[in-house]
Amino acid sequence: MFYTDNKLQYPVRVDAPNPLFARALQQAIGGVEGEIRVAMQYFFQACGARGDARFRDLLMNTAAEELGHIEMLATAVALNLEGAPLAMQEEGARDKAVEAVMGGMNLKNLLSAGLSAMPVDSDGVPFDMSHIYASGNIAADMTANIAAESTGRTLAVRLYNMTDDPGMKDMLSYLIARDTMHQNQWMAALEELGGAQGAFPIPNSFPQAEEQSEFSYAFLGFQADGSAPVDGRWSQGPSVDGKGQFTSQPTTAMGQQPDLGPARTGSGAQTEQM
Amino acid sequence: MFYTDNKLQYPVRVDAPNPLFARALQQAIGGVEGEIRVAMQYFFQACGARGDARFRDLLMNTAAEELGHIEMLATAVALNLEGAPLAMQEEGARDKAVEAVMGGMNLKNLLSAGLSAMPVDSDGVPFDMSHIYASGNIAADMTANIAAESTGRTLAVRLYNMTDDPGMKDMLSYLIARDTMHQNQWMAALEELGGAQGAFPIPNSFPQAEEQSEFSYAFLGFQADGSAPVDGRWSQGPSVDGKGQFTSQPTTAMGQQPDLGPARTGSGAQTEQM
Amino acid sequence: MFYTDNKLQYPVRVDAPNPLFARALQQAIGGVEGEIRVAMQYFFQACGARGDARFRDLLMNTAAEELGHIEMLATAVALNLEGAPLAMQEEGARDKAVEAVMGGMNLKNLLSAGLSAMPVDSDGVPFDMSHIYASGNIAADMTANIAAESTGRTLAVRLYNMTDDPGMKDMLSYLIARDTMHQNQWMAALEELGGAQGAFPIPNSFPQAEEQSEFSYAFLGFQADGSAPVDGRWSQGPSVDGKGQFTSQPTTAMGQQPDLGPARTGSGAQTEQM
Amino acid sequence: MFYTDNKLQYPVRVDAPNPLFARALQQAIGGVEGEIRVAMQYFFQACGARGDARFRDLLMNTAAEELGHIEMLATAVALNLEGAPLAMQEEGARDKAVEAVMGGMNLKNLLSAGLSAMPVDSDGVPFDMSHIYASGNIAADMTANIAAESTGRTLAVRLYNMTDDPGMKDMLSYLIARDTMHQNQWMAALEELGGAQGAFPIPNSFPQAEEQSEFSYAFLGFQADGSAPVDGRWSQGPSVDGKGQFTSQPTTAMGQQPDLGPARTGSGAQTEQM
Amino acid sequence: MFYTDNKLQYPVRVDAPNPLFARALQQAIGGVEGEIRVAMQYFFQACGARGDARFRDLLMNTAAEELGHIEMLATAVALNLEGAPLAMQEEGARDKAVEAVMGGMNLKNLLSAGLSAMPVDSDGVPFDMSHIYASGNIAADMTANIAAESTGRTLAVRLYNMTDDPGMKDMLSYLIARDTMHQNQWMAALEELGGAQGAFPIPNSFPQAEEQSEFSYAFLGFQADGSAPVDGRWSQGPSVDGKGQFTSQPTTAMGQQPDLGPARTGSGAQTEQM
Amino acid sequence: MFYTDNKLQYPVRVDAPNPLFARALQQAIGGVEGEIRVAMQYFFQACGARGDARFRDLLMNTAAEELGHIEMLATAVALNLEGAPLAMQEEGARDKAVEAVMGGMNLKNLLSAGLSAMPVDSDGVPFDMSHIYASGNIAADMTANIAAESTGRTLAVRLYNMTDDPGMKDMLSYLIARDTMHQNQWMAALEELGGAQGAFPIPNSFPQAEEQSEFSYAFLGFQADGSAPVDGRWSQGPSVDGKGQFTSQPTTAMGQQPDLGPARTGSGAQTEQM
Repeated sequence: MFYTDNKLQYPVRVDAPNPLFARALQQAIGGVEGEIRVAMQYFFQACGARGDARFRDLLMNTAAEELGHIEMLATAVALNLEGAPLAMQEEGARDKAVEAVMGGMNLKNLLSAGLSAMPVDSDGVPFDMSHIYASGNIAADMTANIAAESTGRTLAVRLYNMTDDPGMKDMLSYLIARDTMHQNQWMAALEELGGAQGAFPIPNSFPQAEEQSEFSYAFLGFQADGSAPVDGRWSQGPSVDGKGQFTSQPTTAMGQQPDLGPARTGSGAQTEQM
Repeated sequence: MFYTDNKLQYPVRVDAPNPLFARALQQAIGGVEGEIRVAMQYFFQACGARGDARFRDLLMNTAAEELGHIEMLATAVALNLEGAPLAMQEEGARDKAVEAVMGGMNLKNLLSAGLSAMPVDSDGVPFDMSHIYASGNIAADMTANIAAESTGRTLAVRLYNMTDDPGMKDMLSYLIARDTMHQNQWMAALEELGGAQGAFPIPNSFPQAEEQSEFSYAFLGFQADGSAPVDGRWSQGPSVDGKGQFTSQPTTAMGQQPDLGPARTGSGAQTEQM
Repeated sequence: MFYTDNKLQYPVRVDAPNPLFARALQQAIGGVEGEIRVAMQYFFQACGARGDARFRDLLMNTAAEELGHIEMLATAVALNLEGAPLAMQEEGARDKAVEAVMGGMNLKNLLSAGLSAMPVDSDGVPFDMSHIYASGNIAADMTANIAAESTGRTLAVRLYNMTDDPGMKDMLSYLIARDTMHQNQWMAALEELGGAQGAFPIPNSFPQAEEQSEFSYAFLGFQADGSAPVDGRWSQGPSVDGKGQFTSQPTTAMGQQPDLGPARTGSGAQTEQM
Repeated sequence: MFYTDNKLQYPVRVDAPNPLFARALQQAIGGVEGEIRVAMQYFFQACGARGDARFRDLLMNTAAEELGHIEMLATAVALNLEGAPLAMQEEGARDKAVEAVMGGMNLKNLLSAGLSAMPVDSDGVPFDMSHIYASGNIAADMTANIAAESTGRTLAVRLYNMTDDPGMKDMLSYLIARDTMHQNQWMAALEELGGAQGAFPIPNSFPQAEEQSEFSYAFLGFQADGSAPVDGRWSQGPSVDGKGQFTSQPTTAMGQQPDLGPARTGSGAQTEQM
Repeated sequence: MFYTDNKLQYPVRVDAPNPLFARALQQAIGGVEGEIRVAMQYFFQACGARGDARFRDLLMNTAAEELGHIEMLATAVALNLEGAPLAMQEEGARDKAVEAVMGGMNLKNLLSAGLSAMPVDSDGVPFDMSHIYASGNIAADMTANIAAESTGRTLAVRLYNMTDDPGMKDMLSYLIARDTMHQNQWMAALEELGGAQGAFPIPNSFPQAEEQSEFSYAFLGFQADGSAPVDGRWSQGPSVDGKGQFTSQPTTAMGQQPDLGPARTGSGAQTEQM
Repeated sequence: MFYTDNKLQYPVRVDAPNPLFARALQQAIGGVEGEIRVAMQYFFQACGARGDARFRDLLMNTAAEELGHIEMLATAVALNLEGAPLAMQEEGARDKAVEAVMGGMNLKNLLSAGLSAMPVDSDGVPFDMSHIYASGNIAADMTANIAAESTGRTLAVRLYNMTDDPGMKDMLSYLIARDTMHQNQWMAALEELGGAQGAFPIPNSFPQAEEQSEFSYAFLGFQADGSAPVDGRWSQGPSVDGKGQFTSQPTTAMGQQPDLGPARTGSGAQTEQM
């Protein structure tokens, strides 16, 4: 259950409104690396958490934080749209400078939302909730969260580099710090779950004896000329999960030429296929 | 550039075709944890790889492998649909047993594809390429790949547990082994990139002095009653990236009550908003 | 900014778990009439609210409530999936009864989420955030909210009628009551904004003198035989917004036959189009 | 069944073609507030209308009108694209002015459609038919239609304000007038269905005795500090549907701490969750 | 501009309602092979037609027909849902037979639409208007239409084979006949545009001297072992467009190893990539 | 099964990088006319091919080629983004020229991908795999492929005309040539399957005696005034499939006024509908 206090988690200030930067900020709201994604991902992972109840609390707590980040960014988008053009002309003639601003902004921020934020990315593509990874496996969820915060911080850094508005830089430096914490937080949770050697391969509940273990730690090469694939930490030495030894080898087809046979009468195929 | 040999990477055999299992297998093709996702993700990461060229080769090599996995699974879907009902009746009366099978299968596998596989998930939802995470940051990409293989192996294990068809169990035990390798492979690649202490926080190219460092390793609590948030590895001790010390504290709003002011004339708002 | 207390807004109890009902409940989470929609819609409307600040608070307060409803429903889905089949067979043979249950459930609840809820509808289609209507016009927003709660309560009633599980009926009777309130609440807000005669036509800030007023209150008929269109409250008497008189008449084309002219050289058309 | 006469419902004229305005107009075709939405929504509501047959006729009649509006707007988009650049250069050098125009237009209007309209919004996002609300409840449908025409007229007003092309202003002043009528028309239909006191709460066929009536007219507060929620018409006095009295109160969790218990063996969770 | 007469183009009758067949019929409404697709495709092609005006009329005329087909199918869906279960139990106990029916039907037809049709496919996936191919090239459009009617008739045949309801078979035998006509109609239109030798390669306005003509009629082989690709009409003899001679040959990489160089400072990459 | 050689099929060179052209090229990667579409379409058609095995090989061989085309275009996108702006300012002030470039580029190419290609179209809309037409009918598949290559070549021609970069013109002239071949290749395959008179109407396995043959070759007119529809090759003479004679006639409703009757109790409708 959630509560609000109608305030922002951290101050949001825009010194020089910029509709193009408003568009860029939309990526941090509704992009696949954005805050809707993490808020809803932690929320649904919490709702489906089984086992140690601390993980549910950890996840829901951070979901609450991320909801506040969406709110901060939505405020930042609206403030950046302050003064954005409503018309392509001034005093009866088309104005090229105005059109350039309009051409670069996300028109939906005006047409659909009246100069406010929307749950869309920087190209106006709506966020699609299939990006909420909540697998029912708590360790897999942690890997998804580390990934989400890694792409999220990368995005925040790009936005930080894109602007020199002091207010926006201040807000983003806060969000970047939080992403640092969240990367560490989910790595810490994964450590509690056993880390590389205890949690992997995920799910660790599957008896590895049932997998075809000669392929479990083999780096297979798919080079057309049959040469060895590229060498690295992945091609020799102990596996990272500590349960095998990496090997490396070219590979070729072990399977048959697939043959589905003729089509069945009545299946809508051509006569020639039957 | 790609080549093919018209054979399958590993033998695909179905002993007792089952249209419901065909539907389940579709998740491994077009689900967000499926093989289209990894094939295309590694492909696009390779295409955008900058820096050490070995990573490009590593990614494209594995993209080639995953394309072969889609092919295996597509063959398995078609073989499981062999003998699936084309009509709801036999000899002029509706047949409840037939309808139960049809009710459980993905009807599009028949109606759209003539008893073949499609790039959709187990509910017939088409795969959406926004799930291809290729961030331009090679370490972030590796975290996305570890996550993809973790949810992927979890899915493969669930499919393995769902069936007792010997052919399908054989194929899945191979795919599970490959997922084991791929989890390890991407962890190994991340290790080459510095591991937890070298690669994180991602991107490591951002000067941490510019983030608001008092929040970089603080686990903030959002409990409505102001109590301390849940305790764990994330709330004390050195941070996992080795660059800070975890702390833990309740938090409250530091920011203002947001106020966008009145709406502008001509912006399409109500008069009362102006 | 949001806070949580890790409890449910209202008790959630399932007496007889039912995977098919879990699938039905998913519509109330991720369907277009569901709780994600209203939570996020009120949230984004709040973030973009201009003018009287009470509306922002009203919207954000109810957004907080709806987040709690998602949580309740997600819990209900997971509890209904308790005991759902993980395999199609028992003791080595395919089991028709088990397959019937699996055929009727949303397989992704198992395959993607390990028997937990997802942000998808009853067919497994992910929620798409383009359904968040936050127009920047506060009265238009209220109409969207009345519509959302009307379809939402209709859905909740259908779910209530579908089950006879006492726990589920109890939870749904609570949610239905809340939908009653929310329909009334947004109608009350619209009343504050002037009601039918003050708020409409929306936006009321547009000078009606600039619209082609001979068509503003005319019910136009598009019957192929030129007959009068169907009669009703909409075809005569004062208009509901009190600003005109309804009339009714058949209509025919006032415009030209459209002619885009020949295609331009270099535009990729056929030579015959130029 | 539908017929056509190959003419436009109302004249469409563009005096000064403008590719950026073509992009803006796309929102009125394929945006969620656009004409495809209303045409198809009224169409499907008509197809599913049960009860008084006049509503079916009313809906299908207006669906026919809206199809004609899509046609008008598609013509307007193509006419605004007349003379749009096909190449980024003139006489061998990149031309900044040309690029500015191209940068602001929707490139798909050229690349996919050869300077014609598409069923996409102003950001090129295709219309998704999940936005067709046809609930099977005629009163709920009317609320959805009032909402659709409210956001639709808001959009049309914004487009009207954006341009000073006389032809486009003429066309839009016609469409705005039709939206005025349609808002009134659906309110009139709702009045026929009983208005606020007869039709609400929707569906009115559900016996209110079965809802938890102590929550049916209570404005619940979710303020983190437990203070009373914001005051208004919604917090006291008779409810708008005339069936209760508004009250207002802070609320806290009535439900339990959710606990899904341990994960089941074979469900793909981690061993630690079992 | 469109008109209606509130009647169906062809009688629709269901003798034995069947909710599972209702679900199957949804594919013919909102599937990618369905009637929304063709109606809207011909509509948008008409709106963008340049050159000989007869094509615009031809397209809009058939768009009107297809709108009537959607209406027929929507009626058929609702009639097949007559008597579908609203509850999972009768007289207080769960009813397995009822649940089997509910498990096989599209639950949204009940939950979202009150036993009516929706613009979704047989899995409840909403139609996405990106499937409207209207290219601005009239010959390309004709190929898209031939393809649409080919997959459309294939779907109609599968539905015809699936049912033995006399009413449904009658309606489908009509729709199949219309698809026969439409396949022929678009082939006839393509013939008017020059047929294989006049219209192809599409667009025929591009000077073939500017393409790299040594690859224009060469069947390239991508066999991993460098062997010749599969032989057929495509590998020798005159090309179908009459402008070249087919040849066949294995191929290998002509291009470089791609190298994007190091990542730029400030681009959000890892330090190791710079 | 697939192999790679880490090289490009054809050289990719960009002489003057242009972020706006990078955006345009994205259409050829992730647009509905793009290379992901054909690669995956041929791949899935191959996986579902039944009957003459040569078609499977033909399809998979060309799928391999198209994968290489995606790679070429992805490289071209990244090279065109070389030097694209990372920030909106230089030396502390906003720079209008830089903003114009940023306004015209796809911001996600920077924000999500670090100046690399993505599986999205020129508006940043992700490719949706529902565009993969693999019908299980080999002749229908060939029509879909001819259509895909026709819109594909049209797109490539538009891109060729848009740029005067010699490297890009060279690459595109190669891709245009390949599209010429592929149009011819699929027409040749259709010829092998019987051509217009042998393969049509598709599916040719359905006994035409079962369709309502009086409508099979009749061009029906839907003109509101009952006049004859537009004349052409489609309205007289032998049908293109050689199995009938074209006729032409106005048409009117043969079916009833649809009537779904009253709504059922408990179905969530209004009382007035029952």
